[in-house]
Amino acid sequence: MSLNPVIALLGRRLRLAVVGGGPGSFIGAMHRQAARLDDRYELVAACLSSDAARAVQAGRELGLAAERCYADGDALVAGEAARSDGADVLAIMTPNDSHFRFSMAALNAGMDVICDKPMTNTLDEALALIQKVQSSGLVFCLTHNYTGYPMVRQARAMVAAGDLGDIRLVQVEYVQGGRSQPGVSRSPWKDDAARGGPSLVMGDIGSHAHNLLRFVTGLEVAQVAAEVGTVVPTRTTHDYAGALLRLSNGARGSFWVTQAAAGVENALRIRVSGSLGTLEWQQEVPQLLSFKPHGAPAQTRTPNGPGTLPLSAHSSRIVAGHPEGFHEGFANLYSDAAQAIAARRAGQAADPLALHFPNATDGLLGLQFVDAVIRSNAQDGAWTRV
Amino acid sequence: MSLNPVIALLGRRLRLAVVGGGPGSFIGAMHRQAARLDDRYELVAACLSSDAARAVQAGRELGLAAERCYADGDALVAGEAARSDGADVLAIMTPNDSHFRFSMAALNAGMDVICDKPMTNTLDEALALIQKVQSSGLVFCLTHNYTGYPMVRQARAMVAAGDLGDIRLVQVEYVQGGRSQPGVSRSPWKDDAARGGPSLVMGDIGSHAHNLLRFVTGLEVAQVAAEVGTVVPTRTTHDYAGALLRLSNGARGSFWVTQAAAGVENALRIRVSGSLGTLEWQQEVPQLLSFKPHGAPAQTRTPNGPGTLPLSAHSSRIVAGHPEGFHEGFANLYSDAAQAIAARRAGQAADPLALHFPNATDGLLGLQFVDAVIRSNAQDGAWTRV
Amino acid sequence: MSLNPVIALLGRRLRLAVVGGGPGSFIGAMHRQAARLDDRYELVAACLSSDAARAVQAGRELGLAAERCYADGDALVAGEAARSDGADVLAIMTPNDSHFRFSMAALNAGMDVICDKPMTNTLDEALALIQKVQSSGLVFCLTHNYTGYPMVRQARAMVAAGDLGDIRLVQVEYVQGGRSQPGVSRSPWKDDAARGGPSLVMGDIGSHAHNLLRFVTGLEVAQVAAEVGTVVPTRTTHDYAGALLRLSNGARGSFWVTQAAAGVENALRIRVSGSLGTLEWQQEVPQLLSFKPHGAPAQTRTPNGPGTLPLSAHSSRIVAGHPEGFHEGFANLYSDAAQAIAARRAGQAADPLALHFPNATDGLLGLQFVDAVIRSNAQDGAWTRV
Amino acid sequence: MSLNPVIALLGRRLRLAVVGGGPGSFIGAMHRQAARLDDRYELVAACLSSDAARAVQAGRELGLAAERCYADGDALVAGEAARSDGADVLAIMTPNDSHFRFSMAALNAGMDVICDKPMTNTLDEALALIQKVQSSGLVFCLTHNYTGYPMVRQARAMVAAGDLGDIRLVQVEYVQGGRSQPGVSRSPWKDDAARGGPSLVMGDIGSHAHNLLRFVTGLEVAQVAAEVGTVVPTRTTHDYAGALLRLSNGARGSFWVTQAAAGVENALRIRVSGSLGTLEWQQEVPQLLSFKPHGAPAQTRTPNGPGTLPLSAHSSRIVAGHPEGFHEGFANLYSDAAQAIAARRAGQAADPLALHFPNATDGLLGLQFVDAVIRSNAQDGAWTRV
Repeated sequence: MSLNPVIALLGRRLRLAVVGGGPGSFIGAMHRQAARLDDRYELVAACLSSDAARAVQAGRELGLAAERCYADGDALVAGEAARSDGADVLAIMTPNDSHFRFSMAALNAGMDVICDKPMTNTLDEALALIQKVQSSGLVFCLTHNYTGYPMVRQARAMVAAGDLGDIRLVQVEYVQGGRSQPGVSRSPWKDDAARGGPSLVMGDIGSHAHNLLRFVTGLEVAQVAAEVGTVVPTRTTHDYAGALLRLSNGARGSFWVTQAAAGVENALRIRVSGSLGTLEWQQEVPQLLSFKPHGAPAQTRTPNGPGTLPLSAHSSRIVAGHPEGFHEGFANLYSDAAQAIAARRAGQAADPLALHFPNATDGLLGLQFVDAVIRSNAQDGAWTRV
Repeated sequence: MSLNPVIALLGRRLRLAVVGGGPGSFIGAMHRQAARLDDRYELVAACLSSDAARAVQAGRELGLAAERCYADGDALVAGEAARSDGADVLAIMTPNDSHFRFSMAALNAGMDVICDKPMTNTLDEALALIQKVQSSGLVFCLTHNYTGYPMVRQARAMVAAGDLGDIRLVQVEYVQGGRSQPGVSRSPWKDDAARGGPSLVMGDIGSHAHNLLRFVTGLEVAQVAAEVGTVVPTRTTHDYAGALLRLSNGARGSFWVTQAAAGVENALRIRVSGSLGTLEWQQEVPQLLSFKPHGAPAQTRTPNGPGTLPLSAHSSRIVAGHPEGFHEGFANLYSDAAQAIAARRAGQAADPLALHFPNATDGLLGLQFVDAVIRSNAQDGAWTRV
Repeated sequence: MSLNPVIALLGRRLRLAVVGGGPGSFIGAMHRQAARLDDRYELVAACLSSDAARAVQAGRELGLAAERCYADGDALVAGEAARSDGADVLAIMTPNDSHFRFSMAALNAGMDVICDKPMTNTLDEALALIQKVQSSGLVFCLTHNYTGYPMVRQARAMVAAGDLGDIRLVQVEYVQGGRSQPGVSRSPWKDDAARGGPSLVMGDIGSHAHNLLRFVTGLEVAQVAAEVGTVVPTRTTHDYAGALLRLSNGARGSFWVTQAAAGVENALRIRVSGSLGTLEWQQEVPQLLSFKPHGAPAQTRTPNGPGTLPLSAHSSRIVAGHPEGFHEGFANLYSDAAQAIAARRAGQAADPLALHFPNATDGLLGLQFVDAVIRSNAQDGAWTRV
Repeated sequence: MSLNPVIALLGRRLRLAVVGGGPGSFIGAMHRQAARLDDRYELVAACLSSDAARAVQAGRELGLAAERCYADGDALVAGEAARSDGADVLAIMTPNDSHFRFSMAALNAGMDVICDKPMTNTLDEALALIQKVQSSGLVFCLTHNYTGYPMVRQARAMVAAGDLGDIRLVQVEYVQGGRSQPGVSRSPWKDDAARGGPSLVMGDIGSHAHNLLRFVTGLEVAQVAAEVGTVVPTRTTHDYAGALLRLSNGARGSFWVTQAAAGVENALRIRVSGSLGTLEWQQEVPQLLSFKPHGAPAQTRTPNGPGTLPLSAHSSRIVAGHPEGFHEGFANLYSDAAQAIAARRAGQAADPLALHFPNATDGLLGLQFVDAVIRSNAQDGAWTRV
């Protein structure tokens, strides 16, 4: 196997442009690190501020040419589209209400897209976007990055291989403390429903929890009985949501997300039980996967440890015992998307192992889930189809 | 302080009779061990089988006089009541449908009662029992034994002391794998609703989870939106239940219990978040209590470690670092009840620290919670008052 | 199987006398609780103080007859030996320098003995005692209680069954913080070498670590290269010891014990590696046993969980998932000794599973190990035969 | 602060050449990923094989120009030194016996150096190299990468801040299972002492453990009493070593390293106790740092969690709760070295927080420690000065 599958296919790295994620942004730096880790992208253009001087300043700090430092995402797409050496791929990490606009602009310009979740703020936008992706044949990668962790992918592969038997019970929870105290967010646009979407907690983390459940189990959420609301005084956006779940195969589930749990950092957890055993994974110690088979001792699986399945091996760079973290999981999405993009551009089929990154369909299903939670909440918790 | 507060008050140990828990029973042996650990009881009579010969055989194996080995709980109460050295206390560990009958018989005979949960199978029975307890002035202890763990009591004391601030969010789950496979229970009466109660999973473990939540938070469950049902094929009793909760102070909660999680042993877990921090406790490692204060490093509290509050110190026999387990937690209920019983018999007030064992009111609230879950389930998950 | 094997053999419980462990003593209460848990002993006599009035006061608080509350261990042995209903067994929990005297007195009087570790303060005493035990045929149980934990016994059984292959490497450490600060001990006699023995840290906890290593591996320590000394200023007794080990089969080991690690509670840990895998156990979470087989996923074994071997099942009272603790491990020694004593008195062979409690030979080997550590330390760490 | 401190100082990234780490090498890919993560280097040249065709093939797979793909490290240094756009920095990841040669060549050519550990195979080489580094003023970074983890740096900072008080006790262990089975290594040169150095286990992992101890405590190892040898049959290189330690301030320590622990992955662990508390860190869960202060509840510190000190914050890219792993720790060394190199080249003082990467002095001290262990072993474990 080549040391760099993108160079092997294209003779060069993919040219990447980013919109959003300027100075002070955690997620912007993360996207750029994720793009760099496996050397499949070269950053060539950016829009890091809507202020032209700041946009140039920040872009030059990253080593970009001044002419490719844009103050507007649409201008970036237009400018890059006009260059013979223009960006191949646009990565979007702006406030939620602009995801749709920049995604459509990029796709219209023939660029592949990597976009932060949630995909859009409305279902209509999501449907339009999915159509555009399908008609264009371009790659659309949605950064539900938790699915990039090697042990999450091991979990998915074990479920798919039947190691758990028939799936019967699922619990997923995402508990944070970042909004446990009254007051506005570090990112004030998040508190504005017009920009941040109809439910802050569901858009921020509920969509991750839903995606994780679907990714690991391969099942869909068919119905929810839910409540979403606010427990911190004076807050006007949602800070918790709970739901009971009925899955597409008849399994039952529990869903619980909040950003109001004082003192908790980033506790995303999933537990899946089937007829043959139970898997459990926690994001704060992502290098360990608990597997409790019925009638045999409990196991702890590790990346590239004994029993690693191909999808997990594909998703790890290390010899067992050398923990990978958040960056590597995030990078797995970028690197898989790069393989898909390069294969498409080379007119070849991509490695099937590289095709497990979240896409526009995942984005739509996430929005439909959020919508169903909100509808159930409005109907006194009645069971509601997703 | 005296080495044995019961002997200090009465000049002797309490005389204990047991009904149920014969050969092969885990819980029967546990009750007797719990009664022995702190030396506050002397076992004097038992009904260990409905077969007279077996009842005598088993009783004599425990060192009882043959004449005090009964084949019937009512006969035991009558026989002991007729003796000048008869039992002071009856401990009941029979199938659920006889809890009410034996409790009433004992109370009518002036005996204090220690009874397995659920307290009764019906609300009417529970109400009658609670009236009897109140009118008699006798002690009634319900063995929701998980509240006896030192770190559960530390959690209760920390909440009561305001260490968490205002309680906003609660998660409680109880996940087991003992009924993950089709087929009848080890205790077949549990599969018969007339004997085991209206919902096996709720009676067996849901009632524990509910009691734990109330014990730690000091709050009541005001409303539930719930589902209860069966995921294992061919089973006719409930094996899972989920609920969203609204607590008496407006806090929100998630509740999830199942006995169908293959490979899981006995995973009772609670997490409580307030405005100042989050507590988490797991039964499988009961000697550790996680406390994550807002804005300060996460802590792990241990029995008699730094920061131990009086209720927890009262509930532990050890120097820090010497883990206590299930038996010690169970024994705390027996020993506290003994202090209450001895104080009553001595005409004295009991040590307030000894009065945290579950009582008949807790039993009634547990049954009302089960009932509300079943009613909500029947109404498509609608929010239902407990 | 009978509900109480001692009653089955003798028709009654064993009559137990204790010397030491008066009011305020942690270990005294622990011995009495351990004796009670499985109902194989009845406490009939005690010497709880050298002050006669206090001895009677404390004994009566425990429910003893005043005439059987002694102020002197020798008087206790004499007094009980003179009674037709005198004690069968003497349990000794006095300062180390009197273990030998009371053990010999009891054995001379035909009593079986349960004795705190270290067995004696000198090798000569140990040799004399072992001869007496052998010539008398009486049972001598030394309370190296950590070997009573179900998962320690599972570890021993797995090693014996060959699950680890040939043993090659052993680490054992015992780290506490109880003497991290300058000043005298809670038990001042420990700071007096004449009473506490030649090396406080080795007698208090080093002997436990050594015994644990031998118990789990079935190997002897053949040679040591060691240092023992003091790190806390102003202390005059030893507070740490380290050693390299050569075991009887050629395996190598590391040994590290200290009571000067500020903030640490009671961190006894052992790790054993063989050609087929590695076991690890930690006292602070005693209900879990890590087993990492070569080439297969890491396992966590639990009491009565899948893969439990007979010695471990014999040593646990619970259904998997209900953790046992320090008391239950301690009680296993008492209960096994009771089976051995009762069998001897009944003229029968004891259940082989009950014969894994530490005995006088273990006590002698412990003293010889301490002696070798001290000799190696005196010789600049030279390798020294045990 | 600029988004990229190297670009801020130099107007461009550092030009990096690598020797070693060709196809199939874990550590080669790791070096290149570490160099990329923070975007401070541009890979411009490589020697990835001693076979010219393979060297070009591999280099081109990485996107290098064919003319900068060398088949010999000396040729690489010469070729790059001759170019106006030649490499600034040489990273060395060849077998141990060539570290000295390539380091000297690079330094002689004015290149800064990043080199795998152990620094050299002999003390004489190490002394010569250190002189060269000092006389040249160039940067020499030795990749004892475990010191790059944020929580290891937090530990160092906490010790330096006095949070532990006077250091009294240190345990360090590095346990792996990679050589638990007979047979040659994956890297056969390691089994050849002429190439791999005098002690395989000490060079491979003992040097890491020693460096970690020094990094965290700020203390030197003054004396050792040690054994080093082989426990796996038929092996001819060392697979375990143990030592007792006397540190420069009088503290005592335990050292234990092995690659023969079947089933263990990569268990590097350190525990440091001072008069005020104890720290513990384990490489397999590097995102957690245990701190047990005397007299207060045990804490678990996390990257960028409450109480993070500046050196740790400097060494982490994330918001608390998003675990970083092995790559990020490794990258911290590369990125800090880049800051030092860029500052030197810009004629400025480097940020003091960036100057905690291991250097040639650390390399020499590591070799001296290995030498002392071997000498003590040859003298029957006698205490030996380092």
